[in-house]
Amino acid sequence: MATDIKAALRRQRIETPSWAFGNSGTRFKVFAQKGVPRDPYEKLADAAQVHRFTGVAPTVALHIPWDKVDDYAGLARHARDLGVGIGAINSNVFQDDDYMLGSVTNPDPGVRRKALGHLLECVDIMDLTGSATLKLWFSDGTNYPGQDDLRARQDRLAEALAAVYDRLGDGQRFLLEYKLFEPAFYATDVPDWGTAYAHCLKLGPKAQVVVDTGHHAPGTNIEFIVAFLLREERLGGFDFNSRFYADDDLMVGAADPFQLFRIMYEVIRGGGYGEHIAFMLDQCHNIEPKIPGQIRSVMNVQEATAKALLVDADALAGAQAEGDVLGASAAFMDAYNTDVRPLLAELREESGLDPDPMAAYRRSGYAEKIVAERVGGAQAGWGA
Amino acid sequence: MATDIKAALRRQRIETPSWAFGNSGTRFKVFAQKGVPRDPYEKLADAAQVHRFTGVAPTVALHIPWDKVDDYAGLARHARDLGVGIGAINSNVFQDDDYMLGSVTNPDPGVRRKALGHLLECVDIMDLTGSATLKLWFSDGTNYPGQDDLRARQDRLAEALAAVYDRLGDGQRFLLEYKLFEPAFYATDVPDWGTAYAHCLKLGPKAQVVVDTGHHAPGTNIEFIVAFLLREERLGGFDFNSRFYADDDLMVGAADPFQLFRIMYEVIRGGGYGEHIAFMLDQCHNIEPKIPGQIRSVMNVQEATAKALLVDADALAGAQAEGDVLGASAAFMDAYNTDVRPLLAELREESGLDPDPMAAYRRSGYAEKIVAERVGGAQAGWGA
Amino acid sequence: MATDIKAALRRQRIETPSWAFGNSGTRFKVFAQKGVPRDPYEKLADAAQVHRFTGVAPTVALHIPWDKVDDYAGLARHARDLGVGIGAINSNVFQDDDYMLGSVTNPDPGVRRKALGHLLECVDIMDLTGSATLKLWFSDGTNYPGQDDLRARQDRLAEALAAVYDRLGDGQRFLLEYKLFEPAFYATDVPDWGTAYAHCLKLGPKAQVVVDTGHHAPGTNIEFIVAFLLREERLGGFDFNSRFYADDDLMVGAADPFQLFRIMYEVIRGGGYGEHIAFMLDQCHNIEPKIPGQIRSVMNVQEATAKALLVDADALAGAQAEGDVLGASAAFMDAYNTDVRPLLAELREESGLDPDPMAAYRRSGYAEKIVAERVGGAQAGWGA
Amino acid sequence: MATDIKAALRRQRIETPSWAFGNSGTRFKVFAQKGVPRDPYEKLADAAQVHRFTGVAPTVALHIPWDKVDDYAGLARHARDLGVGIGAINSNVFQDDDYMLGSVTNPDPGVRRKALGHLLECVDIMDLTGSATLKLWFSDGTNYPGQDDLRARQDRLAEALAAVYDRLGDGQRFLLEYKLFEPAFYATDVPDWGTAYAHCLKLGPKAQVVVDTGHHAPGTNIEFIVAFLLREERLGGFDFNSRFYADDDLMVGAADPFQLFRIMYEVIRGGGYGEHIAFMLDQCHNIEPKIPGQIRSVMNVQEATAKALLVDADALAGAQAEGDVLGASAAFMDAYNTDVRPLLAELREESGLDPDPMAAYRRSGYAEKIVAERVGGAQAGWGA
Repeated sequence: MATDIKAALRRQRIETPSWAFGNSGTRFKVFAQKGVPRDPYEKLADAAQVHRFTGVAPTVALHIPWDKVDDYAGLARHARDLGVGIGAINSNVFQDDDYMLGSVTNPDPGVRRKALGHLLECVDIMDLTGSATLKLWFSDGTNYPGQDDLRARQDRLAEALAAVYDRLGDGQRFLLEYKLFEPAFYATDVPDWGTAYAHCLKLGPKAQVVVDTGHHAPGTNIEFIVAFLLREERLGGFDFNSRFYADDDLMVGAADPFQLFRIMYEVIRGGGYGEHIAFMLDQCHNIEPKIPGQIRSVMNVQEATAKALLVDADALAGAQAEGDVLGASAAFMDAYNTDVRPLLAELREESGLDPDPMAAYRRSGYAEKIVAERVGGAQAGWGA
Repeated sequence: MATDIKAALRRQRIETPSWAFGNSGTRFKVFAQKGVPRDPYEKLADAAQVHRFTGVAPTVALHIPWDKVDDYAGLARHARDLGVGIGAINSNVFQDDDYMLGSVTNPDPGVRRKALGHLLECVDIMDLTGSATLKLWFSDGTNYPGQDDLRARQDRLAEALAAVYDRLGDGQRFLLEYKLFEPAFYATDVPDWGTAYAHCLKLGPKAQVVVDTGHHAPGTNIEFIVAFLLREERLGGFDFNSRFYADDDLMVGAADPFQLFRIMYEVIRGGGYGEHIAFMLDQCHNIEPKIPGQIRSVMNVQEATAKALLVDADALAGAQAEGDVLGASAAFMDAYNTDVRPLLAELREESGLDPDPMAAYRRSGYAEKIVAERVGGAQAGWGA
Repeated sequence: MATDIKAALRRQRIETPSWAFGNSGTRFKVFAQKGVPRDPYEKLADAAQVHRFTGVAPTVALHIPWDKVDDYAGLARHARDLGVGIGAINSNVFQDDDYMLGSVTNPDPGVRRKALGHLLECVDIMDLTGSATLKLWFSDGTNYPGQDDLRARQDRLAEALAAVYDRLGDGQRFLLEYKLFEPAFYATDVPDWGTAYAHCLKLGPKAQVVVDTGHHAPGTNIEFIVAFLLREERLGGFDFNSRFYADDDLMVGAADPFQLFRIMYEVIRGGGYGEHIAFMLDQCHNIEPKIPGQIRSVMNVQEATAKALLVDADALAGAQAEGDVLGASAAFMDAYNTDVRPLLAELREESGLDPDPMAAYRRSGYAEKIVAERVGGAQAGWGA
Repeated sequence: MATDIKAALRRQRIETPSWAFGNSGTRFKVFAQKGVPRDPYEKLADAAQVHRFTGVAPTVALHIPWDKVDDYAGLARHARDLGVGIGAINSNVFQDDDYMLGSVTNPDPGVRRKALGHLLECVDIMDLTGSATLKLWFSDGTNYPGQDDLRARQDRLAEALAAVYDRLGDGQRFLLEYKLFEPAFYATDVPDWGTAYAHCLKLGPKAQVVVDTGHHAPGTNIEFIVAFLLREERLGGFDFNSRFYADDDLMVGAADPFQLFRIMYEVIRGGGYGEHIAFMLDQCHNIEPKIPGQIRSVMNVQEATAKALLVDADALAGAQAEGDVLGASAAFMDAYNTDVRPLLAELREESGLDPDPMAAYRRSGYAEKIVAERVGGAQAGWGA
């Protein structure tokens, strides 16, 4: 069994986000950290470190326009030279002043055209980088009841999604992201999985739902959504992070490691592991250093996956069938309570990696090197 | 315009629930009130009082088996004699010891068969009472992670729903209710509108979603769901009540009258008013007297409807189109801030009713009469 | 170090609640289980089994009037004969029809007198049983804005608490419990720790706050409250259970084991371990068997405690002082990620216990014995 | 009675915040608006417009260092010339890179000294401007469990508060603000009213709690806190705004006007009206124009106050005393359902103001004037 689990863990791929290496923060303050990248090339270099020490983070998601370059083929080559590849393309239609009242759902048709243009441009970039996945998140929504027509905004959204869908090439898909609130504070146009699902369903199989683990109302059972979307064959992937309150964007597994385990269990149970489900990180390292923050996050996903793989499926199914509540719970918790760190250390050594990625990165001197070298220029960042 | 609004208000129909007239409570205590009905016939008599004084509550929903009788045609005649009719049939598959681990999603096929049998019996009762609507709420779910297989439970649910759907006759439909939690505390099998919607979609147009206003996670924008389901032509109706925390089942409009106004606005905006959307009350009058509790609730729905009808659609649409946030908000709030009680009083008088239903009921002596007459026998109630 | 940890674990005392052995449920249904106790004597017998197999549950909390007997000294002797003792006395002023609008905060002075009488009677029982702790939970509150005067209810509450405080003997204390909502749905009279704290502060050191881990608003950081109350020397103890949504009363550690670890860490950090802080269970085993439900819960508290004891205080303090966010987090998580079950199994064996209490109980035949013997009579239960 | 109400409304004073006139936004984007002030002088000019049209907003709160000037006496004169005065001084210890891990609770004593220095400087500014109130909000907290010692942070907080308290002159006070989360995502050092209250209690009467209506966990009953703090004589004032989800900082009364009414009712009921309780606005007009956003907010507070003043205290008290749930609720709701806009329009006319402040401002041409004049220079804003 341990052999199977190791084989499964060896297959795992976790995508890091280019923006996690830049500065981030809250509306109150973006704290600047030393050595932070100043362009997409430096971001890829940092992401390559995460893969170097974990061995399971071979692709990097881009964010357009934050990662805009003149030569995307060149950027892709640069990534390859660093040992990584370009992953999903993330569109950004929330940072121009034009988008104050929305992008694709804006009451102004001119703004809608502009936003759609950007989305289509993202597919152009996918063609150039060879990316298979477009991630669509819309901050669109309203702050005050009555501010705009909720239904008309759905019509506008449907129109834009259809145009993007039609533009997708063979082997390309888009993932539609939902989010309860922020930055819209009354009604968000894609607030929950049901809304994203309904839109995707009308378009076809290339439209799938992406679950950002920080985007739900308090008390929402996320693994239920995962199980349900897998059953409906509409789960496209994850934006992993963790939260205690709202969309805190903390390191995945930091706030509720048991929840992460339950999510990974449903992924595996639903046949979503090792398939086309994308495991992406989407986090903000506001106060911790970025590269080790990403390494730790990758390790947290690995640990949750290892525990989920350890669940004794037969024992669990047997207890469930008998209605043995405590027996089923015990079979489930037995896996969660296991310390899988030795197993993962062993796995890393077998793959020629250091068993302790955090310590290995620390010893590598990379952190000191970028602090020394990256002087001058504007650090990458996001938000206002 | 006032004429149109009055005409619209005159058309409104609000359905009262038979169980609201019985005793109810929390898990801590069901407080007994004097004069409470002892059988379905007395419940209908009380419901008829609500209609007598408000003029807009002509039907009464039944709950099976709480309202089981030998002669449903006789019960329907009894209702007609009282001036009301039988409305929706509510199934109950949560109060037998067999259902401890679920009804239609129970791991035990025998329990599932029993539960399905009950649901089909409810359709038989619909045939006898002439009811067009079956309301399905499942308390099914699990309390502990791992307790049962989330996905298998969806398979079982789909199977039961299909069997019920096939049994529906012409002019009959079912409404599928969702609820975040309680009595299941880990995963509820129909926890949100998306789940209910997805199941209904696969079955056909006779399967629709019912929105219980107390069944959402904190922060959920309910009127968005209403607008969305109307756009998808899948909104079947409401179970109205209000809540500050969980499924408190307080009188509708008591906790957040502005929310009720927003919901009614979206109903009207989405073309759901005066159509097949059922406005049903589903409340627990734990500490207040039942009949006036229902009268007050009906009045609260009327007031919210009147305000929603008062929204100046042109002014609102104009401001929305211009992106005038404060102007659109003002147009919306102007209607909400209007005191519509004089309008409703006038409307009642025009219909030969007392302008003040609460006072009229109080003066009627009905409350004293039932306290005096209903002595002996077991009072109707619900819950454990 | 392992020696110290074992010594600390050996000192741990967890109190079981008599009511956990009776039937419980939600407002929708109390499912009856076979073999459930029919009186306080049988409850104590069941609680003794929990202590027999875990070795750390030597006392049992009583609930008055559920556990009313004629001869409390005799009940205490019965407990001693079974190898356990009587713990805290829990008052119950929420299950008489008189308390519909409150007990000690009721607008009716007659009801207030009755409620206070019950509380004082509980102190009488403490004198008889030798209990040192009175637990006060008030379901008092209102369902509708305006229903009663919020401030006057505080005045009435303060008056009752003062009377109880004055009645306490040497070596006696009361613990005041707070709860956000349920069964009151608008305003609860003791809704949060701040309210409980403020009342206790005015009375003196014998009045302390008890933290029920299921009684908070979503998102509340419970361990912060624990740390704060310990710093103020006002933490009296815990009612342990776990929840995903509201006051679900699931087995402690079942919903969020990481949270339980964090709570135990703050207890230890704040000097509350092994002192006068009472670790009590307060759970409802609605769908799982009661005795093994309690055994599992005791084990969950032990495991969280063991992990919290494992935190390397020096490493943690060092990283904290340096502002090393990831280092401090790693030191903390290192303890949590450790599998402490072998340590606890060893500890049990050293104490002459079976290393696996769940299996040992199962093998003991006690479950079958009570099912066979406890036939006839009314099973103990709670709620409506 | 209408005369009394008018007199009370005439006495009302609502303080506007200088920062509401600058640009604001979310972490995703701060949208720039035209005509926004470029310095504290222009902010005061805009705030003066709010007072000019509403007549009840005669003071303006400052935020240091955002409103730092060389000559505070000159700034105060400038305000007086504009017809307004300087109100509370708001400290800001969250926007320097030094504060990444906290200000007064930072593990680094050097950072703590710096933060305390800023707080004391704010008192110096109070001396210069004649402000009586210092508002203290600390963003201090941690993002990850274990990151820092929760209890040590309380010790550091207490030390800083004591130093500030000692520095306060006669007629000066500080208001301590609490907030559940953001920007700290695991544990905030002053997360709830209980924490703020406990710290104030130890210092003395010049330390009071300020309630920001957007800073609570979901489901928190804010008016209960208001009533409780008034009973304890520790309520210092409000930061008014409204929210659907987290700290949305929408216009007060926009999200839940009924809640605002309930809050104002408790203020009046508790004797906090017309006393030293400060009614301050603290909002972000991210997408709506700032000055009319403030005017509308002031009007919303006035309307809620007028309704609260309309509550028939005798009718309410009578129904409450009799335990007449529906009668008490009706007395309460009767006031809320009244349209008080005509009364307020009348009141304004009697005071020589335009009855419609929004329209009057629009007609004034001030909006066009500032857009034309304020060209060049950096617009005021906040956040990162």
